[in-house]
Amino acid sequence: VARQLKVVRENKQSLPGVKIPQEIVISSSFEQIVSGKDLIVIAVPSHVARSVGKKVNRFEGLDNIILVSVTKGIENRTLLRISQVLLETINWLDEAKLAVLSGPSHAEEVSRKIPTAVVVASRNHKTAELVQKVFMSPEFRVYTSDDVIGVELGGSLKNIIAIAAGICDGAGFGDNTKAALQPRGLAEIVRLGVKMGANPLTFAGLSGMGDLIVTCMSQYSRNRYVGEQIGKGRKLEEVLNEMVMVAEGVRTTRSAHQLSKKYGVEMPITGEVYKILFQGKDPKAAVYDLMSRDAKPESWG
Amino acid sequence: VARQLKVVRENKQSLPGVKIPQEIVISSSFEQIVSGKDLIVIAVPSHVARSVGKKVNRFEGLDNIILVSVTKGIENRTLLRISQVLLETINWLDEAKLAVLSGPSHAEEVSRKIPTAVVVASRNHKTAELVQKVFMSPEFRVYTSDDVIGVELGGSLKNIIAIAAGICDGAGFGDNTKAALQPRGLAEIVRLGVKMGANPLTFAGLSGMGDLIVTCMSQYSRNRYVGEQIGKGRKLEEVLNEMVMVAEGVRTTRSAHQLSKKYGVEMPITGEVYKILFQGKDPKAAVYDLMSRDAKPESWG
Repeated sequence: VARQLKVVRENKQSLPGVKIPQEIVISSSFEQIVSGKDLIVIAVPSHVARSVGKKVNRFEGLDNIILVSVTKGIENRTLLRISQVLLETINWLDEAKLAVLSGPSHAEEVSRKIPTAVVVASRNHKTAELVQKVFMSPEFRVYTSDDVIGVELGGSLKNIIAIAAGICDGAGFGDNTKAALQPRGLAEIVRLGVKMGANPLTFAGLSGMGDLIVTCMSQYSRNRYVGEQIGKGRKLEEVLNEMVMVAEGVRTTRSAHQLSKKYGVEMPITGEVYKILFQGKDPKAAVYDLMSRDAKPESWG
Repeated sequence: VARQLKVVRENKQSLPGVKIPQEIVISSSFEQIVSGKDLIVIAVPSHVARSVGKKVNRFEGLDNIILVSVTKGIENRTLLRISQVLLETINWLDEAKLAVLSGPSHAEEVSRKIPTAVVVASRNHKTAELVQKVFMSPEFRVYTSDDVIGVELGGSLKNIIAIAAGICDGAGFGDNTKAALQPRGLAEIVRLGVKMGANPLTFAGLSGMGDLIVTCMSQYSRNRYVGEQIGKGRKLEEVLNEMVMVAEGVRTTRSAHQLSKKYGVEMPITGEVYKILFQGKDPKAAVYDLMSRDAKPESWG
């Protein structure tokens, strides 16, 4: 892929029509990518974060480097956030040098300079400010946060709700249904997030509600697309096999389902998506099951 | 209109294709509508709520009636919520008999039994529960709340953000831009709402975030439509003149702009929409002005 990108300067599969600027050096050599850098962005699917972390760990003299993770997901089995996976695998990394960047930022639009706003979170405020300065532009607005857990969980868990939104689309439900789903979905994200140490207000911001909205609504959302195909009655395996890019939400549903049990948190939408994806439950029946839960006061958190 | 509806049993202008069931009695006589009823729903544009309230006030013997307002808006000049207008104009009405119903519920979908969820709020929990029982069905899920102010403000103020979202659409911005706008918009709604006595958590629910999302995104949203036309460079007066139904957000922008000054609350999106609608500001310039405000930590409330 790297060889081809160097020649063509365009990723025809994942970002067709966008020329990669000459300033960007393309390489598949970890040595070349990592050595002598001030800041590294790790943008890999969640299920390879551990192996990439181990490779990065082999390099010495990186004590002053800042590492930014943009991966969305929660590792299956370990149930760790991706920044935790990186901290576990990279010996020289500590929380002060680590940041996570997240928010409603489909690459199809960012690459075309369509106005976009995101959040960068680090336990070290100076690190967050440095990353903010690096990425800020008139079309790309970066807010800082100290809530790594909240920003990372929001970006990850919203993909489950996006699958549910896609299921609504595919099964022929409407805008009202999807709009009802999103605050209920955010509420269960908040419930789990708070138990895991996040600040609940983070989920009301760009990396929570903002990213949730774009992922539930956008034509560019892969997770919504997967849900839509499932909602139309197709099989998960068949849908995933024909996709070039990764729909993180499928794996995240497994992890979140386990986390909801581990922390004793009620997550009805996640539960229904789990049943649809992995236990063959009928999508329409799942939506009606969600709708017909006991009538009660609206509650948050 | 009533005469025609009785014959045709369909509102061809505002809800084409939906037959009005025979159980529904159509009348333009206040006497017939109001007398002998247990529950009245007031569903009129905000700018006629006062005159309708005065007409309802003429009828006697309504001491045990429940009144449900579904009107979205804030009265210009007085800056009162619509339930306040009704309390002011209807002598026999008190807060215990009053409820407001709001949430993501475009009539185009509710009338076709597409799953929808809303909130009914009353200061009197029994009143809220009664309205919940009356409206609840397998496709129409009703949650209760005691936060009349929050539910009413959420339903009203979200129309301003929907106009802003439409402006983004019309001016050629993207999903990322609209997704960034919505949490920032909700944040300024929360700031004002809290000053006016609302529970901030109400805005995270169906009548806040849920209704905001559907109004910013749906093809059925009249407020988003107005924004889209403005974003394309058309004049407000021209757009409003050709619309059959009322886009409440235009009037609400005036009221909210005044409220933000009255309560000393920063509402940058409302301010820009106000400048675009009433002071001829260029829509694209307004979006970039919002994007280029000082870089800062993401904050909520």
